[in-house]
Amino acid sequence: MSLVIETNVEYQAKEAKRAAKVVSLLSTEEKNEILFHIANTLESNKSYILQANKQDLEKGQEKGYTTAYIDRLILSEDRISEFAEGLREVAELDDPTGDILEDWTLENGLNVKKVRVPLGVIGMIYEARPNVTVDATGLALKSGNAIVLKGGSSAIHSNQAIVDIIHKALETTAIPKEAVQFIASTDRNATQQLFTMKEHIDVLIPRGGASLINAVVENATVPVLETGVGNCHIYIDKAADVSKALSIFVNAKTDRPAVCNAAETLTIHEDWYKVNKDALIEVVKEHGIHVYGDDTVVQSISGAEKAKEEDWSDEYLSLDIAIKIVENVEGAIRHIDEYGTKHSEAIITENRETAEKFLKLVDAAAVYHNASTRFTDGGALGFGAEIGISTQKLHARGPMGLPALTTVKFQMTGDGQIR
Amino acid sequence: MSLVIETNVEYQAKEAKRAAKVVSLLSTEEKNEILFHIANTLESNKSYILQANKQDLEKGQEKGYTTAYIDRLILSEDRISEFAEGLREVAELDDPTGDILEDWTLENGLNVKKVRVPLGVIGMIYEARPNVTVDATGLALKSGNAIVLKGGSSAIHSNQAIVDIIHKALETTAIPKEAVQFIASTDRNATQQLFTMKEHIDVLIPRGGASLINAVVENATVPVLETGVGNCHIYIDKAADVSKALSIFVNAKTDRPAVCNAAETLTIHEDWYKVNKDALIEVVKEHGIHVYGDDTVVQSISGAEKAKEEDWSDEYLSLDIAIKIVENVEGAIRHIDEYGTKHSEAIITENRETAEKFLKLVDAAAVYHNASTRFTDGGALGFGAEIGISTQKLHARGPMGLPALTTVKFQMTGDGQIR
Repeated sequence: MSLVIETNVEYQAKEAKRAAKVVSLLSTEEKNEILFHIANTLESNKSYILQANKQDLEKGQEKGYTTAYIDRLILSEDRISEFAEGLREVAELDDPTGDILEDWTLENGLNVKKVRVPLGVIGMIYEARPNVTVDATGLALKSGNAIVLKGGSSAIHSNQAIVDIIHKALETTAIPKEAVQFIASTDRNATQQLFTMKEHIDVLIPRGGASLINAVVENATVPVLETGVGNCHIYIDKAADVSKALSIFVNAKTDRPAVCNAAETLTIHEDWYKVNKDALIEVVKEHGIHVYGDDTVVQSISGAEKAKEEDWSDEYLSLDIAIKIVENVEGAIRHIDEYGTKHSEAIITENRETAEKFLKLVDAAAVYHNASTRFTDGGALGFGAEIGISTQKLHARGPMGLPALTTVKFQMTGDGQIR
Repeated sequence: MSLVIETNVEYQAKEAKRAAKVVSLLSTEEKNEILFHIANTLESNKSYILQANKQDLEKGQEKGYTTAYIDRLILSEDRISEFAEGLREVAELDDPTGDILEDWTLENGLNVKKVRVPLGVIGMIYEARPNVTVDATGLALKSGNAIVLKGGSSAIHSNQAIVDIIHKALETTAIPKEAVQFIASTDRNATQQLFTMKEHIDVLIPRGGASLINAVVENATVPVLETGVGNCHIYIDKAADVSKALSIFVNAKTDRPAVCNAAETLTIHEDWYKVNKDALIEVVKEHGIHVYGDDTVVQSISGAEKAKEEDWSDEYLSLDIAIKIVENVEGAIRHIDEYGTKHSEAIITENRETAEKFLKLVDAAAVYHNASTRFTDGGALGFGAEIGISTQKLHARGPMGLPALTTVKFQMTGDGQIR
């Protein structure tokens, strides 16, 4: 299979649209069986996928990708088994489609049902990780949708191989293989075509870094489910318990620094800072965290650098932290209002009233009192697999599971009612 | 008060954002009282509003606006009482904010609450009707939001006067008048500034004709709740009852031809057409409906004109209908797939299986079996006042009441939980 031919993106999107109708009519049982079948087929074709992955890795090494980047790209027999297991878990999730959310009859006898239905065609635009190819396909099919996949060029061979195997699996099922479209082009133009294909694509979901997400949000006329940029803050209040504050800070900063729910800025009440500075400095040193801060911080923490605008506004995704000293909770909220990305924001305090003010006034998908921001995650919250973490306010907010891939439809049944 | 000064749109949006926090903290009772107070203040300041309305009407007559246009613009004492009554009805509606939609505790003791909260700042961009100024303000405030209003220039004096009175009413309440911003500029640039003000405006709702709506959808980076264009179809199946078919057709076409849920195209099964053509022609003549059709129709209905592409794709919003003869329900669905705007689509048939196929496969906010498309309306369905009818799939679909102006927030309460 050649990967260099120019794909006809519009043709593929139209095919997906047609196939979406077929998928939408299947029963939950049919869809689950098919997901199990895809899982098994992936497991029995590991070598095919690993061979393709090797090509991507070789190209990556030639191009001098970082170790972290290579780590996200690399597959193994175990990783592929995890993909398969992920599909089986999606099969076990409740199917949201077909649910009748409301059902009432008007005085004139017209029956109204609000029914949950698939969105139609999901356009997934993502970066390196090949697991998105499997996860997104599983979630899309389970919720009765078709999917158009546009992965990053660095993983193109791996993604193509995974889709080849998914297509192979679908050959013997009720889901036409056209329901899973892979844009096998490294041309930027291919991605941009997806941005405006409103007739054929119902929603675009970008997953990756801030620049990818912004490019989609700013240029797409297709509705977008914005995911993932998390410039998350922890506010340590005057009344914060020291050991809770420090352990939550360390967890949120160091557990997995590269993920979107990691903490990027500490705002600290000046009174707390005065008393507990040394304990904080100890923890910072112990965990090899590099500090950028305001004047107070720079003066009191040796090695701390003066924070620039981008230290407040951007994610580090590394063992760096920005620290700002504030006068009160209002100051912390103002800072979050200005720099937060509406992902996850935490307050550490033993004062319930202050906590409530923070939880009410901070505008974010998830607000925490005395807990780590790391819990903003479909798995951790018990939702099962997620297609991304929404940082927007419309449609879905926070970790997005299967219901985020559905819409509703009003079904009216009458016997001649007119107005 | 001068209307010609150039407004600083960004300043206004920022003020709205600040005021939104204040509104979001009010109790349902406080908000309801304020809505009643605004209603009373509008009623006791009718002459002020009517005087401003006179200015708009005079300008409209100078500019030679159509009678229909003037009709939508004109206010009267009764109309203003209706506005006030509308606000009182909104006050009676359930307040969706603060509802705890889900509440669970993880094994580690972290409590998770999914709470319904206001969106923040609603940007309303609309055309002639000054009633939108009152309705949208009432719905926004009731759901805990601030609002930025950008009405059409033809109603600018009326809208400004209404907002003056709303501000006057708010002076003595807990809602700061900054929560209701009116962009008193006829400059196109003012509207375009709203399109990209993501930091201060949470959602844009365009209400008006197709060109206004498309301009917003295509140019806005602020999330949009798309409303209203309704190129609605009625499919008369082979097994349609003649009297139901004709009365539903007449109702959906003639009851209020200018509204979005009026029928614009009939697709008719060829067998039904052969048998019932004469009855259809009689009804068409009786109601003064002008027909555009395919070849079969043109040959069999005297006076019918050949339909062009725009007859299938555009709304007439008048006593015109496009008629297409199809071979079967699949042909009707294909036509709707191609030309429908996902608003309201109806099938008339006594065959339950065919009806189910239609209801399942047609992709629209509302699908009808044996009833008029005219029921797609917040009032008719018992939702109370609506901010518009969504024809998009994300966030809200169909008539949008108060819940469409809210989002959710995950509130986590712990005692030091880390991952």
